[in-house]
Amino acid sequence: MLVTVAPGSRSAGPAKLADVAALAGVSVGTASKALNGGGRMRPETRQRVLDAVDALGFRPNQHAQSLHTGRSWTVGLMTTDGIGRFSTPVLLGAEDALGAGKISVLLCDTRGDAIREQHHLRNLMDRRVDGIIVTGRRTDPRPPLDGIEAVPIVYALSPSTDPADTSVVSDDRGGAVLAVEHLLAAGRTRIAHITGPEHHAAARDRARHAVEHLGRASLGLSTGRVHHGEWSEAWGRRAADAVLRTAPDTDGFFCGNDQIARGVADALRERGVDVPGDIAVVGYDNWDTMALASRPPLTTIDMDLTEIGRIAALRLLEAIDADPAPGVHTVPCRLIVRESS
Amino acid sequence: MLVTVAPGSRSAGPAKLADVAALAGVSVGTASKALNGGGRMRPETRQRVLDAVDALGFRPNQHAQSLHTGRSWTVGLMTTDGIGRFSTPVLLGAEDALGAGKISVLLCDTRGDAIREQHHLRNLMDRRVDGIIVTGRRTDPRPPLDGIEAVPIVYALSPSTDPADTSVVSDDRGGAVLAVEHLLAAGRTRIAHITGPEHHAAARDRARHAVEHLGRASLGLSTGRVHHGEWSEAWGRRAADAVLRTAPDTDGFFCGNDQIARGVADALRERGVDVPGDIAVVGYDNWDTMALASRPPLTTIDMDLTEIGRIAALRLLEAIDADPAPGVHTVPCRLIVRESS
Repeated sequence: MLVTVAPGSRSAGPAKLADVAALAGVSVGTASKALNGGGRMRPETRQRVLDAVDALGFRPNQHAQSLHTGRSWTVGLMTTDGIGRFSTPVLLGAEDALGAGKISVLLCDTRGDAIREQHHLRNLMDRRVDGIIVTGRRTDPRPPLDGIEAVPIVYALSPSTDPADTSVVSDDRGGAVLAVEHLLAAGRTRIAHITGPEHHAAARDRARHAVEHLGRASLGLSTGRVHHGEWSEAWGRRAADAVLRTAPDTDGFFCGNDQIARGVADALRERGVDVPGDIAVVGYDNWDTMALASRPPLTTIDMDLTEIGRIAALRLLEAIDADPAPGVHTVPCRLIVRESS
Repeated sequence: MLVTVAPGSRSAGPAKLADVAALAGVSVGTASKALNGGGRMRPETRQRVLDAVDALGFRPNQHAQSLHTGRSWTVGLMTTDGIGRFSTPVLLGAEDALGAGKISVLLCDTRGDAIREQHHLRNLMDRRVDGIIVTGRRTDPRPPLDGIEAVPIVYALSPSTDPADTSVVSDDRGGAVLAVEHLLAAGRTRIAHITGPEHHAAARDRARHAVEHLGRASLGLSTGRVHHGEWSEAWGRRAADAVLRTAPDTDGFFCGNDQIARGVADALRERGVDVPGDIAVVGYDNWDTMALASRPPLTTIDMDLTEIGRIAALRLLEAIDADPAPGVHTVPCRLIVRESS
């Protein structure tokens, strides 16, 4: 059906539902039902309303729609400790997966502050969000959001301590195994491990899995222990010197992040050691600023943070559709081979 | 007035407006007007409604409120080229200024894609956002958002090409002057300038203002020209070598960003040049990962991106309150002095 609009036949400004109803020759109530898919009516009637919508360029008011459908088509995206290098790709992956549909993303940054978290949560609940994704910088488990029952929640990167919640995390075990396996495949047998602080799960878990995987090849660490310190280049440089004093025959370094690996590569170059000829270096994170600027560029483990965000969004959409998948879901890491190994 | 609630006196589940009205002894319409600040009523009546709200822990449905007030209390935050090192602090500053009130932030990432931009804009308009902040990675002016008339917009970091729009940008002139002035104050007179690509406004503008400020001290660049290249450490290292071949008496480097400055510092150290004893180095951005990891840590210019986001949010709130401030607003830079100068 072709609908033509006579000049002056409707109110000024953006088209209203009343204009649509008038043009379609139905009541406002019927027009509303036709648009929201509810109510019983003849297909021709519904079509007449849809044609009027097209003819008038009518865009439904989402707030009116939300009152009608009980869904706000918004999701809260809450970061717990600022938006940084780790949470940004997670946010982008989630935003991409949600925004492809008609879901909008409400951004909240709680900065690890309990009062800010409560303020944002109240606001999200007032806005009747359909669900919430919670993400943070660390891989350490975090307590579940307090006082939220009616709304589905998915935790990304930082899992919930409650196993009944849905969490999407990186496969730290797989990442450590990829790194060690790569060094072993390159014929390295005297491998050192330098990483971040022992109270960070990311440091502890990767170290444990690296040691276990070396054990399966009947090997141990070249220095007999894990070197815990800071996530910094300066620590990488200092620790590399310490390792070579203790175990001069070390032929491979697996580092807990790319900053440490870059520090190790610098220290080795400044000692006249050839990387990777004499010693291979593998980092973690695939943080391009570090990995590509390193001399030589770093072989490293990519956690695919964008994919973690995307999967978290998909799990949340399922939970909103009353099909939740509780438990911890892991996203595999990828080995990125460059010139340092 | 103290309100007590008798058990069973209201419906199950979260309190509804009808429960509030019943407890306050008014009609639902009066309760609604009391909450939305509209309508004429006795102060005692309004107070009775507010007391009932407190007693019942009633939280108004924002969608119903929005239909009533015509405001959605949401603002769109649109990044045009991913969420990265530059847009993140701008976003956080804006989110902080808006979230302190009851305004929520809808995040949209257009990734420089016109189709994504239109999709997000339509969505934001459907949601009746009160305003939009547009931000990007570059300081180059960008065309205004297409087809948006009824909603206030503020451009942050990347200004609009239309002078009638409201834009909040960094003071690139002030930043360049701070850097050059600092080197001059330290007695440096043979200053070289290494920076990013000439087609980036950030490189072009800072270079022009640096040259102008040297001119005011009757000085020119030590190599007689600006060295344009990439925003990378590798370019900083290469360019430092080229500068010292052309003008071995160079005693200061002003670099267009911290990555270039770090590359310069590395090249100088590896040549045995003492920084800052022989040559001082000043960067730009105060990107902590680069500036602090550099050997020595970098003196640099901080654009205060968080403040740019905050000011953009405040300008937007003014525009939403029908008090717009068109034109380009600049946020001053700060000099951060560390060991490289």
